[in-house]
This record gives sequence, C-alpha cells and structure tokens, in this order.
Amino acid sequence: MTVAQIVLTPIGHVESPLTDLASAPKQGFEGAPEAWLALDPRVLDGLDGIVAGDELVVLTWLDRAERDVLRVHPRGDASRPLSGVFRTRSPGRPNPIGLHRVRVLAIDGPRLRVRDLEAIDGTPIVDIKIAL
Amino acid sequence: MTVAQIVLTPIGHVESPLTDLASAPKQGFEGAPEAWLALDPRVLDGLDGIVAGDELVVLTWLDRAERDVLRVHPRGDASRPLSGVFRTRSPGRPNPIGLHRVRVLAIDGPRLRVRDLEAIDGTPIVDIKIAL
Repeated sequence: MTVAQIVLTPIGHVESPLTDLASAPKQGFEGAPEAWLALDPRVLDGLDGIVAGDELVVLTWLDRAERDVLRVHPRGDASRPLSGVFRTRSPGRPNPIGLHRVRVLAIDGPRLRVRDLEAIDGTPIVDIKIAL
Repeated sequence: MTVAQIVLTPIGHVESPLTDLASAPKQGFEGAPEAWLALDPRVLDGLDGIVAGDELVVLTWLDRAERDVLRVHPRGDASRPLSGVFRTRSPGRPNPIGLHRVRVLAIDGPRLRVRDLEAIDGTPIVDIKIAL
C-alpha cells in the first residue's frame, strides 16, 4: 500500500433498544426501532439546519465485526454461495464501516431521534451526511 | 467521548484523470470521468462475484479535506447560508469519509473500472459495498 493508516475520532454513539447483534435487523428498513444519535456536544454546530423529516446517511464503526473476513454467505445464509464481502452489506470486512439511511424524527441539542437505524446500542458514529 | 480512536487501513486507491480538486465535480453524477479502483491484491477475494454492471458504494478517505470545519456554505457557494456539515455532502468534516455511488464497467484482477466517481487521483479507498 502506498497510503498510511487513517485515524478516526468518533463524533458520538447510538442509543438504541437493540442490544444484541443476533436480534438486530440486517437493514434499517427491515423493522428497526427508533433510536437516538447521541452526538458529542463539541460537534453541535455541524448539525445546524437539520430538521425533523430530513433523511440522513449515518456512518458508524461496527466495532464488533471481524476485520479478517473477505468472503461471506450473504445475509449469513449458508444456503447462499460465498460472495466477496465488497459485493455485500455484511458487517465483516477489512474496515467495518456501517452505512445507515435514517429519517430524523426530533432534535434535542446534540441528540437526534431517528427511525430505521439497525445499529446496536453503543455503536460509535463517525460521520453524518444528508441523503441524496 | 466514551469510545476510543479507530484505525483504518486503506484497501486501495483511486486512479483517475481528475488530479485537481478545483476542477473535480462535486458529485459523481455531475460529469465525472471513468476511473479505476486499484485495490490491494491482498483483498482480491473480497471482490468475488462483482460483475460489470454492478452498482457499488465506494467509501474513500478525503485526505485533503479539513477536519476542523463544522459549518460550510453548501457547495462552496457563499450566497447560500452557512449549514452544519452533517447536513451537507461537503468534504470538510471531522472524519472526511467520501461516499460515492459508481457503476462497474470492467474488472481486471484487483482493479475495477468504474464510472461516476468524482474522487481525485490517489484518493485512498477504505471500503466497498453493494448499492441497495
């Protein structure tokens, strides 16, 4: 590799009733409960202009995922043939960054109430973008 | 913050005729040229199953972006009011991860030819997912 390592600092974490990987939906639109994005007050200015109803893309760090896996059975279904992780949304991959499309329900200072987030409680948040 | 720092290792880099930030389109669908995703041969197995025509989401590290900016004029247009970076797609943000939706045109071992990638030449790639 010609490039160095990259260091991210989390900007907050997920607060969710989902505490168990096994019971969490695989995608947010598959029945995720409402959750909070609890952001560091130091990044509060970065939320300027976000209103209820906005659709955001949340990037998380899937800290429980394995990083040394390159092929998986999609959706953990052993009846499906192995696929390269980069052709899946599987959490296991060299840099396990989660990508979640959520809808903002309410805002309370540096905390955003959202729906359709399948990340489990405590998952670090590394970035947020407006959905295109 | 209750969470520690996160270390990413790039899985490859972008090879593109775009070498200058000022001339690069702001979004891939705004006229980006064809480019290569030049991946580390060590992650080749992760590409298994990817075929021409696939739509992928590429995550990059925008290594030239400023990390201490929390409010920006959207699209660099000073006539637009300041907005929190998390409500924009601006590269400047605490963890400048780029998100790019691309179409695979061809595959050559660990190299993927793609269109609609606005990242400039040399940009580190940190993850690839199938688009939903």
